[in-house]
Amino acid sequence: MSEQTEHHHRENVQQALAEIQHLLARHRLVEGLVHRQAMPRHELVETLVHKQHVAELARRLDAMHAADIAFVLEALPLDDRLFVWDLVKAERDGEILLEVSDPVRESLIESMEPKELVAAAEQLDADELADLAPDLPRGVMEDVFRLLGAEEREQLRAAMSYPEDAVGALMDFDLVTVREDVSLEVVLRYLRRFDELPDHTDQVYVVDRQEHLRGVLPLARLLVADPEARVADVMLSNPLTLTAEDRADEASRWFERYDLVSAAVVDAKGRLVGRVTVDSVLDFVREQQEAERLAQAGLREEEDIFAGVLDSVKNRWAWLAINLVTATLASRVIGLFEGSIERLVALAALMPIVAGIGGNSGNQTITMIVRAIALGQVRTDAARKLYRKEIAVATVNGVVWGGLLGILAWGLYGSVSLGLVMTVAMLLNLLLAAIVGVAIPMTLSRLGRDPAVGSSVMITAVTDSGGFFIFLGLATLFLIK
Amino acid sequence: MSEQTEHHHRENVQQALAEIQHLLARHRLVEGLVHRQAMPRHELVETLVHKQHVAELARRLDAMHAADIAFVLEALPLDDRLFVWDLVKAERDGEILLEVSDPVRESLIESMEPKELVAAAEQLDADELADLAPDLPRGVMEDVFRLLGAEEREQLRAAMSYPEDAVGALMDFDLVTVREDVSLEVVLRYLRRFDELPDHTDQVYVVDRQEHLRGVLPLARLLVADPEARVADVMLSNPLTLTAEDRADEASRWFERYDLVSAAVVDAKGRLVGRVTVDSVLDFVREQQEAERLAQAGLREEEDIFAGVLDSVKNRWAWLAINLVTATLASRVIGLFEGSIERLVALAALMPIVAGIGGNSGNQTITMIVRAIALGQVRTDAARKLYRKEIAVATVNGVVWGGLLGILAWGLYGSVSLGLVMTVAMLLNLLLAAIVGVAIPMTLSRLGRDPAVGSSVMITAVTDSGGFFIFLGLATLFLIK
Repeated sequence: MSEQTEHHHRENVQQALAEIQHLLARHRLVEGLVHRQAMPRHELVETLVHKQHVAELARRLDAMHAADIAFVLEALPLDDRLFVWDLVKAERDGEILLEVSDPVRESLIESMEPKELVAAAEQLDADELADLAPDLPRGVMEDVFRLLGAEEREQLRAAMSYPEDAVGALMDFDLVTVREDVSLEVVLRYLRRFDELPDHTDQVYVVDRQEHLRGVLPLARLLVADPEARVADVMLSNPLTLTAEDRADEASRWFERYDLVSAAVVDAKGRLVGRVTVDSVLDFVREQQEAERLAQAGLREEEDIFAGVLDSVKNRWAWLAINLVTATLASRVIGLFEGSIERLVALAALMPIVAGIGGNSGNQTITMIVRAIALGQVRTDAARKLYRKEIAVATVNGVVWGGLLGILAWGLYGSVSLGLVMTVAMLLNLLLAAIVGVAIPMTLSRLGRDPAVGSSVMITAVTDSGGFFIFLGLATLFLIK
Repeated sequence: MSEQTEHHHRENVQQALAEIQHLLARHRLVEGLVHRQAMPRHELVETLVHKQHVAELARRLDAMHAADIAFVLEALPLDDRLFVWDLVKAERDGEILLEVSDPVRESLIESMEPKELVAAAEQLDADELADLAPDLPRGVMEDVFRLLGAEEREQLRAAMSYPEDAVGALMDFDLVTVREDVSLEVVLRYLRRFDELPDHTDQVYVVDRQEHLRGVLPLARLLVADPEARVADVMLSNPLTLTAEDRADEASRWFERYDLVSAAVVDAKGRLVGRVTVDSVLDFVREQQEAERLAQAGLREEEDIFAGVLDSVKNRWAWLAINLVTATLASRVIGLFEGSIERLVALAALMPIVAGIGGNSGNQTITMIVRAIALGQVRTDAARKLYRKEIAVATVNGVVWGGLLGILAWGLYGSVSLGLVMTVAMLLNLLLAAIVGVAIPMTLSRLGRDPAVGSSVMITAVTDSGGFFIFLGLATLFLIK
């Protein structure tokens, strides 16, 4: 599906988008004229100039790579997007649907007839179909299933049975296999019988009659070795293998670490069931990155930038609701000390500093720990070491920044004791941030949860409420008589 | 350097780390006994049991992939790390130094003699050397330079002349080139003369006598096409090419979009100068992701988790200082309204909610816009559309969440007018967050800066100070008589 075609250059995409937008604008202009003169719509279709624009647009799209068309569709507002989508040749629908982002895919699928969707799905391999399946209407998938051959149906079932973060979801079935007892000459002749090799074939898989993986034969070895040699003598007999149940992010680390282009996927009995290629891994790493970035800002999914206002509100509301709850809690902590604030109003101005710096410092700790956990460098017995270090860092920061703020408070309000309370409160809140900043991700990780998700909200909630409580509490004890 | 070796499996790394830690612990135990009995240190070296452990450790390391040794070194505290590093065979030093993280690399280089460093550097290709060069002492680099051949020296100079985020920094020089007027049979014979092909050779490059790139010949095509055919008839004559000045993140998008394994790098005259392979791209994407994650928490660089406290404090202080300034500004805004707070102390408890929710909402907007900019979907003329949408979303959120908070304030403090002020202040601060949330990344991007860096601090500064000002200002106008 995704072979490197001859007709794309690197500047094309932005330029193509601009050209297409220009053609669309001219098209809209004609349509606008027609509309204002109350010309019936079917006559518009007859307009020569309009026909020219549309034909030019279609030609332009034909020459483009599926991924580039996907880019253009994502960058267009809904009405232009559907207009362009109609101009794309039906036989390319499948590959383009695979390339577009989720919300744009939804908008395109909504605009299509079930018949068109079945036709588009038919063009795809089983592993690609599995990616598309969750977005297709039930009836369409049933029709597609009926049209598949027995082997493909089995592959589709297998591919759909894995969660998104498992190797099974990245796997494809485009395997070239050979036997170990033949000569390289035979392998070369066998390969020459293919019209083309599957994308990303950097190695062929060596299997026995029961499909057990015996080794892999990299094409680079095949090409330099003596053609008389036997496969068994040239192959790598102990290659890295994956299982469909392995976690995709671990597999992506192996691809990075060992610079792989493809890797075999085997079942529990060592039989070859599929392969993972580096392009899926790269896509996975990027998607993970995007998902994390969105999650950090509390966005549930990527937003089509031309999506309606209500879709955006829905996407964003959960995070705001959670923050409303934590902010309200912090507000109630302040409420406990209203009497003290009434008597020493400087407290109101100074308290957000204590809470804010604590939150920042806690987020730094969390980022370090989450990273160390992700890299597999933190084991449970390292916990004490990490606590000790973060507490030491917090103590230094607390003395330095707390001291500075104490002097600031003293300068602003002329009270040494207020300055001292400020310093001690900063120190204590930074210590709280350090301890909780290690504890939250370690606990999440021990519970089998992703330590990156939600850590930041939690630490901010703790350092806000905690910071207000510590500062106002100390002030009440020592400053308010 | 990074070929797929036969002697690694996927479970090895964590297990190897555990085994090595176990061997180290036993080694320390012997050392401890020796120490307590005040045995002279040179006798320890003679101890049989000690020798066994060390030999076992060295054997274990010999069998490991360079990337795995790098992982182990990163996961060990400094003294253990240097002990293990001494046991690694000198001829592997270069490739391992390439694999470890920056702070760990520094710690290893500090422990090495100039002579050892020169020897390690000599083992590397020019492009790898360029990656290592910034961390090597000046004298060492001068020695290495002297030892290089003329061509390699030129390549090293070229590779070092590009900034880290340019394609030139990802490029290597392991090119296999052929002429277009020969038959595939000739190419196959030519390749067979290599001992091995460079890693990630998925295609050979077709050049003329002046090194102008004429096309690329994928190995997959070479293997299936008729050996009698001419290269010119089988090659892709218009492949995607990069220049050394292209931005690495754009190149990584092209690798993703077109599923490339390698791409040619050409100069302004179309002459082939190098290539980029997908393994460098994958590393680049991951490093970018890490750098962004660290930058978001205000960490200047990755921290060796066993680094000293003062290194950590230095790494983190700039961010805390910036936040101290913005928090102090916000605090001064509150200071302006101390009189109002004294008369209506409820304001002190409610004001952090207004500021906090504004910050969260602004960060959501920024995340959306930064993402759209990174994907190239936002052009300047789309700005008005984005402002309109974000303002609409903010209005809905302001009415809903502001209304809710207004009711909360009314319930808590029994004042309808306080509730109304709360609602209006929330609405206004969310509108401020929306407008500034679009404006900041758009402006940074227009100034040629990375819109992801610093946006979050700025929006929080605006919504904090702005939120306090709006809420306390409205309260002073309408509630304080």
